[in-house]
Amino acid sequence: MSTSRIRKEVDAALLAFVDRQRPALLAISPDLAPMLAALDALLTGGKRLRPAFCYWGWHAAGGRDRRDGIVAAAASLELLQASALIHDDVMDSSDTRRGQPSVHRRFQSLAREQDWSGATETFGEGTAILLGDLCLAWSSEMYETSGVDGEHIARGREVYNLMRTEVMCGQYLDLLEGVRGSGTVEAALRVVEFKSAKYTIERPLHLGAALAGGTPEVTAALREYGRPLGIAFQLRDDVLGVFGDPAETGKPAGDDLREGKRTVLIAQTLERASPAQAAVLERLLGDPGLDRAGVDELREIIEGTGGLAACEAMIDRYAENAAKALGDASISGESRIALEELAVAATTRQA
Amino acid sequence: MSTSRIRKEVDAALLAFVDRQRPALLAISPDLAPMLAALDALLTGGKRLRPAFCYWGWHAAGGRDRRDGIVAAAASLELLQASALIHDDVMDSSDTRRGQPSVHRRFQSLAREQDWSGATETFGEGTAILLGDLCLAWSSEMYETSGVDGEHIARGREVYNLMRTEVMCGQYLDLLEGVRGSGTVEAALRVVEFKSAKYTIERPLHLGAALAGGTPEVTAALREYGRPLGIAFQLRDDVLGVFGDPAETGKPAGDDLREGKRTVLIAQTLERASPAQAAVLERLLGDPGLDRAGVDELREIIEGTGGLAACEAMIDRYAENAAKALGDASISGESRIALEELAVAATTRQA
Repeated sequence: MSTSRIRKEVDAALLAFVDRQRPALLAISPDLAPMLAALDALLTGGKRLRPAFCYWGWHAAGGRDRRDGIVAAAASLELLQASALIHDDVMDSSDTRRGQPSVHRRFQSLAREQDWSGATETFGEGTAILLGDLCLAWSSEMYETSGVDGEHIARGREVYNLMRTEVMCGQYLDLLEGVRGSGTVEAALRVVEFKSAKYTIERPLHLGAALAGGTPEVTAALREYGRPLGIAFQLRDDVLGVFGDPAETGKPAGDDLREGKRTVLIAQTLERASPAQAAVLERLLGDPGLDRAGVDELREIIEGTGGLAACEAMIDRYAENAAKALGDASISGESRIALEELAVAATTRQA
Repeated sequence: MSTSRIRKEVDAALLAFVDRQRPALLAISPDLAPMLAALDALLTGGKRLRPAFCYWGWHAAGGRDRRDGIVAAAASLELLQASALIHDDVMDSSDTRRGQPSVHRRFQSLAREQDWSGATETFGEGTAILLGDLCLAWSSEMYETSGVDGEHIARGREVYNLMRTEVMCGQYLDLLEGVRGSGTVEAALRVVEFKSAKYTIERPLHLGAALAGGTPEVTAALREYGRPLGIAFQLRDDVLGVFGDPAETGKPAGDDLREGKRTVLIAQTLERASPAQAAVLERLLGDPGLDRAGVDELREIIEGTGGLAACEAMIDRYAENAAKALGDASISGESRIALEELAVAATTRQA
């Protein structure tokens, strides 16, 4: 079973779940069709990283003989992620997601096109909050109704609950750093750990291991591999948010700079910046009207100070630690190959 | 077991659940303390109607011999409601909730007091979105870990899932009516049905019956009682939103008018208004700066046209239908008395 084959199965499971909900929603009111259309559009994109780590964690932990429901349980993480993305975009006022208008922008446009009289901005944001809530509710519904047997679902549920609390707390700490602006590498790394690293890689692996009823040893080994890989993944994402190709990231160039994200990359840059460079960075970072020249100026500072090189060195170190942990783990050849492949996908220089 | 005794048990179960989460959050970071404080403050208030209907539905459906976990399962509805309130207040830009600052306002104040440099408004709203998400995640966690046995939890989960989808869809339809402004009694009633009536009364009773493993007959009878009572409850809430005493409602006088809510009361008024009255109503309704004189002018129109009387007549009719359905139900005397008491609490002229 290859990683691309699992990806297709995850896509099919997601579609099947939403298709089961569709008639119930339209029975409440045909006016709910735009909500479903927005969700369909959002679910078309994405790398399905979290379901993949969950599936291969399950596989590596010895679950491969009881396959019932595991793909649907893993795919439910994609609905949790959809919820996080929709709400993130409201919080950050992002215009785009996965190369398309963000959900709140989509509904603002709908209201304008239909010439509705009320406040279109409020309508867009309110709808996005509700669709994110629906995705969050549906993620647990999809998990619970996946078809995995009750004993393993219950074991996994503990990890699922922990993961949700961690990611929401991590997001709060991220917002807090944004307004408080302590700007240290340490504070930025704490956000990375909870908002992203655990949520994207360590906990999905952990969940998979729990769903397989894996031993404490294999569970610990998978988490040992997942923890540094998760950090490397987010640091790569931060670099791509500044230097990535919009065609690959699905976001305009320098969008993270416009949003003023206090990433490890920025903290590494500030640690190395001259007072003049730091002043430019503090002035331009978070400017919603930042143009191409401003993006270039910031990129030069981030590269020139050595901030970028320091961040790349961190990525290499964390990725090496992950590879070493994977090498030490007692798992089958098939899952090892898949997890090596996923490690590359999570930290590659393309989005 | 009286309704006030159950209320105290629900309060204790909620506190115990949050107290179990508290150390885990503070271990992630002491910076999460304000999130917990905001939740503690919000959970202090509220009438606990949904847990009460769930508990007494369970009781009426014959669950009273296996009491393990039922109070915690019922109390989890209060976390779902906390999520809805926090997100509602962001969507409506409400300043107050249960007589205190709304969550987003609370965090805006915190950021200002701490003199944080970033955008305080965005921080407040972002935090409220996240705390609402956390409450939504915790509601299902509290339900699943309530201690009710697996078979009954699974039966109830189907109702729980349906209820969450319905309330979120109902909220979208409410937003949609707000911007589209069709203004008919029929459209307003459809919002009432899904956003409020089913969610507050019919489904909590249904959930309780499922958790008790009740017969189809008693389940149907409870829902028959809950459906009209839920509508009467929301119509009463709409009247209180315009005419209620701020000391009782925990909201400034006329707040629903300032928010421009398209309630059944407003639709009933518009159906009866002269062109001049309708013009005043359309001009003043939804004006965020509406002062006391404007509130009084709108109140006079709502009373003068007979809109208020029409709405009161609807409340009486729905409440009578509920009472008749309860009278016909084959349930024990103790649960009948409790459900009669709850019907009064849900439709009384005080908030």
